[in-house]
Amino acid sequence: MNSRDKDRKKTVESVLESRLSGRVRNLSAYSVPHHDCSVKLDGNESPFPLPPEVAARVAEETSRLELNRYPDPEAYDLRTLISGISGFPSEGIILGNGSDEIIGMLVTAFAGGTGKVVCPAPTFSMYRLSGLALGATILEPGLDEKFDLDMRSMRALIEEKDPDIIFLASPNNPTGNAYSEDRILEIIELSGGLVVVDEAYADFSGQNFLPLVKAHGNLVVMRTLSKIGFAALRLGMLFAGEGIAHEVNKVRYPYNINSLSQASARAVLESREFIAENVQLIVRERDRVFGALSEMRGVEPFPSDANFILFRLPYADSVFEGLIERDVLIRNFNRPGRLENCLRVTIGTPGENDAFLAALRGALSL
Amino acid sequence: MNSRDKDRKKTVESVLESRLSGRVRNLSAYSVPHHDCSVKLDGNESPFPLPPEVAARVAEETSRLELNRYPDPEAYDLRTLISGISGFPSEGIILGNGSDEIIGMLVTAFAGGTGKVVCPAPTFSMYRLSGLALGATILEPGLDEKFDLDMRSMRALIEEKDPDIIFLASPNNPTGNAYSEDRILEIIELSGGLVVVDEAYADFSGQNFLPLVKAHGNLVVMRTLSKIGFAALRLGMLFAGEGIAHEVNKVRYPYNINSLSQASARAVLESREFIAENVQLIVRERDRVFGALSEMRGVEPFPSDANFILFRLPYADSVFEGLIERDVLIRNFNRPGRLENCLRVTIGTPGENDAFLAALRGALSL
Repeated sequence: MNSRDKDRKKTVESVLESRLSGRVRNLSAYSVPHHDCSVKLDGNESPFPLPPEVAARVAEETSRLELNRYPDPEAYDLRTLISGISGFPSEGIILGNGSDEIIGMLVTAFAGGTGKVVCPAPTFSMYRLSGLALGATILEPGLDEKFDLDMRSMRALIEEKDPDIIFLASPNNPTGNAYSEDRILEIIELSGGLVVVDEAYADFSGQNFLPLVKAHGNLVVMRTLSKIGFAALRLGMLFAGEGIAHEVNKVRYPYNINSLSQASARAVLESREFIAENVQLIVRERDRVFGALSEMRGVEPFPSDANFILFRLPYADSVFEGLIERDVLIRNFNRPGRLENCLRVTIGTPGENDAFLAALRGALSL
Repeated sequence: MNSRDKDRKKTVESVLESRLSGRVRNLSAYSVPHHDCSVKLDGNESPFPLPPEVAARVAEETSRLELNRYPDPEAYDLRTLISGISGFPSEGIILGNGSDEIIGMLVTAFAGGTGKVVCPAPTFSMYRLSGLALGATILEPGLDEKFDLDMRSMRALIEEKDPDIIFLASPNNPTGNAYSEDRILEIIELSGGLVVVDEAYADFSGQNFLPLVKAHGNLVVMRTLSKIGFAALRLGMLFAGEGIAHEVNKVRYPYNINSLSQASARAVLESREFIAENVQLIVRERDRVFGALSEMRGVEPFPSDANFILFRLPYADSVFEGLIERDVLIRNFNRPGRLENCLRVTIGTPGENDAFLAALRGALSL
């Protein structure tokens, strides 16, 4: 090593040593283990490709874009379309690159620096990661024995800590269940801070808090296109009161949604009949897979209102590996605590679900 | 107003009153005034559409995507391609939705909460906005009389304040000039914190700090595809030492670059010969427009190393409006201080530049 290299190394280290935020130093990056399997049931994606006529429409819309020009910073046409579909005023709709970016904007606006963020656990890890990166204090009360909200701990937390944001994923990931509506409502009414109901999986459940946003100034709702067929676009949506949207918009990067995603999202939403049909098929398949899992000895599936099922079984790690050997990838959540020996399978096409069930039977019989 | 509406209003207000971060309350959103003009020279975009064969390649690549699947979270293929073109190790390359997202990641990682961010002014406003939203203290030393770095104030600031991040846009927006290389180098050497050289406009200048990243552990470089023909894709790039990239990656949203942008960026970069040709044409046109502006009485253009020219002239507001009336949109920077009576014109096609010059002559002769 010559002296120049030494200087350089000293400087890289010195920058990290002296300048890296302690918040970030202690973080681990969100990581998705990668395995190549033919049957991919790990990501809570839709298994269905676009119908050919919709794909053609997407191609036509995107081919008309002027790629040398900036996107519409307000995504006016897309927000107007979403407003028409949802019946929600477009002034209250904010778009993000997936729910991830929206979570980041909400934390920045309402809990950045010294705020308190509540995310009942186990749940989607980005609430915690975003909160930590942005300096918030994270409070993670446990869910109850049915993975529903534990109201004793929620009430106590609201009273004692007065949190700035409460993230409620309903249906919740990775547990799959929607929280009881009356419990969510009680939390909205008790909380003086923002309550974010993350409805990423709402299409697969009967629940819908959008109509309540108007009556509850501290309620905002998140949705996404990722679970219903368009994960590639990275389009998350926030539905909020106008005053709240106005403030969140200040921390949105002005051209955050690129032109291709805006145009593609418009094209698929304009032809949206097929989305509901696919959702219905997934819901039917979910119930079929649930039934099949229930009949396997030692396997305990948890009731799901989403497009995936969490289940517990002995030797989860070995079974997970056994599934990979059988060319089926699901997600391993096995860790000490509430998710011990738990795996999560995304509902796929009927054929993929059959392949998963067969592979699971094979792995269990080893 | 019935009592329910009253309750609702009280709650929206109470949430904002009690929970909105003071940092955000005091922010104004980045706003881009919108005017419809046939000649659009306000956004520092490239005026050139894709060559038909490249557009066809983009369409083919995007049509092959499975829109129901998440993007590659690591954007491996695109980062490998950028690594090959730049000669920079892919481990040190991080992508963002435009430079905006990269600025946010850098501030979050190195100055979030209580850090100090320096951005010599006037410059690109997102350094300031991102810094403020994330709780950093913003220090804005003035540029010198040639809009170059004022080394007396920079040295004093580094010694007295020991900033965590220094953003140096070179070429700088909206002034157009590249900073002196020896001044940038001195700042890198003096600073114990991160120095971010934002080379958004580097293709139009001779400057290139990428080869210096290896030798200077506190130097990182930003680039973007927005100014060279692909603003619609929102693709910003960070080039950093591996240790720094590793930490910044922790605050990156895992699937931040959507599949359409990844595929389109690959397609245009694989056919990239036309980009350099377009850049050369813009540089020639910039020099022609600069000459023409210099010859107009009362008009003072500032030397530019970018794809736009800042110029000062009397009654800038009226001239700006006069240009809009003549169907030519440029950008008005007139405000008290260093940019008083300054307008900025993006270099367009030869025809657009002629239209701008003719409209300016018309507006001036009123």
